[in-house]
Amino acid sequence: MAFIEGRNAVREALWAGMPLRRVLIAESTQPDRTIDDIVRLADKAGVTVARVSKREIDKLSERGAHQGVIAEAAPYPYALLDTVIAEARSKPHSLIIVLDHVTDPGNLGAVARSAEVVGADAVLVAKNRAAAVTPAAYKASAGALAHIALVQETNIARSLARCKDAGYWIAGASEHAEQTAWEAPLEGRIVLVMGSEGDGLARLTRESCDFLVRLPQAGKVGSLNVAQATTALAYEWLRRSAQER
Amino acid sequence: MAFIEGRNAVREALWAGMPLRRVLIAESTQPDRTIDDIVRLADKAGVTVARVSKREIDKLSERGAHQGVIAEAAPYPYALLDTVIAEARSKPHSLIIVLDHVTDPGNLGAVARSAEVVGADAVLVAKNRAAAVTPAAYKASAGALAHIALVQETNIARSLARCKDAGYWIAGASEHAEQTAWEAPLEGRIVLVMGSEGDGLARLTRESCDFLVRLPQAGKVGSLNVAQATTALAYEWLRRSAQER
Repeated sequence: MAFIEGRNAVREALWAGMPLRRVLIAESTQPDRTIDDIVRLADKAGVTVARVSKREIDKLSERGAHQGVIAEAAPYPYALLDTVIAEARSKPHSLIIVLDHVTDPGNLGAVARSAEVVGADAVLVAKNRAAAVTPAAYKASAGALAHIALVQETNIARSLARCKDAGYWIAGASEHAEQTAWEAPLEGRIVLVMGSEGDGLARLTRESCDFLVRLPQAGKVGSLNVAQATTALAYEWLRRSAQER
Repeated sequence: MAFIEGRNAVREALWAGMPLRRVLIAESTQPDRTIDDIVRLADKAGVTVARVSKREIDKLSERGAHQGVIAEAAPYPYALLDTVIAEARSKPHSLIIVLDHVTDPGNLGAVARSAEVVGADAVLVAKNRAAAVTPAAYKASAGALAHIALVQETNIARSLARCKDAGYWIAGASEHAEQTAWEAPLEGRIVLVMGSEGDGLARLTRESCDFLVRLPQAGKVGSLNVAQATTALAYEWLRRSAQER
């Protein structure tokens, strides 16, 4: 997401604290409350606002839905897995949450929020076919995406192998797991792998796991969404880790 | 929410499985893909679709944003607290989740989803200044709002007193609680009271609680949203209840 188009989308991105490079407003754009908000929020965030010709905005627009307002997103400052591993090297309790092809930005944001709250060391996402750090993701994260280490990797299976080498146990969340979250060894140095809401874990990912774990479901119809399941599992990790401290 | 206005809103309501009484489409409305979807989904759900004059739709419209399409929602089939209590009378483990002025329909839906999954006996909401069962709530609940017993009460404090009389312990979620979820007696017959995201529990509600409970937060900046916090606390209740069974 290089550019964010449209008044409401740009205002939302600023509200959510998404880092922007600059905001461009067409000279022909009539001032209104949304434009006022954008200028005020950009000013507060130290983001440059420039008045340019509508033609210039047309050139940058990918969707043609800019309404005279477009913002250039700053590249998201992804963390490196090696750095995360190095910084958590001496921790007896460390949690890395891996999202295996979670495509909804809202879910990415919600997971980042939970990850930050439980004190996880990182969230790792796939580079392809995965949710991007959009304004919706920032909003759902309630600011957490500006604080948690988010790692982007091309090859999830290889990333899991690197974590294993660094002394992590790889726990895959799966409805088909034999062990529940309360029985599985969900403590210490854990990589928690969450699959996509529709398909669960990819086969290659599942084969990289040391054990699978499921959340018991006592209801009749439902299943949790990926962010809620992550929260429940991450709290079980935190509960065990807190007891051992 | 008596009427749902606009093509996308009506389509979304049908997609989410929200019970509707009828769908009205203005005779002058040109068919398009959304209209096709609406007719198909309504047919599948057994909802009558009528072609009427635009004027008739104008009369029903509250927001004037109907785009020629309006749907009348069926009244939500709320459950009665007395029925919930009676049906759970002999259960050693029973969970009732109370939302004290949670106003976001998406959060209501997400809480209903978690409640259904952990096998809670009901979700209880306030009648005033609280989230309504909107299409967004249905969507976030992933169908759970059609299965969980949702109770609507005018006076939350009085409802809590009735639960207390029926042998429930009233647990209030509060960031200021001394006991964590792992220390507090979060087991057996529990009413879990969740406050609004901004303000927490109302004073009267807090005073009705037998004990307060908080989720430990190991992060630096964040807090959970109400649906995520409910999920984590409800799973802690389920964990204890499962051990005792």
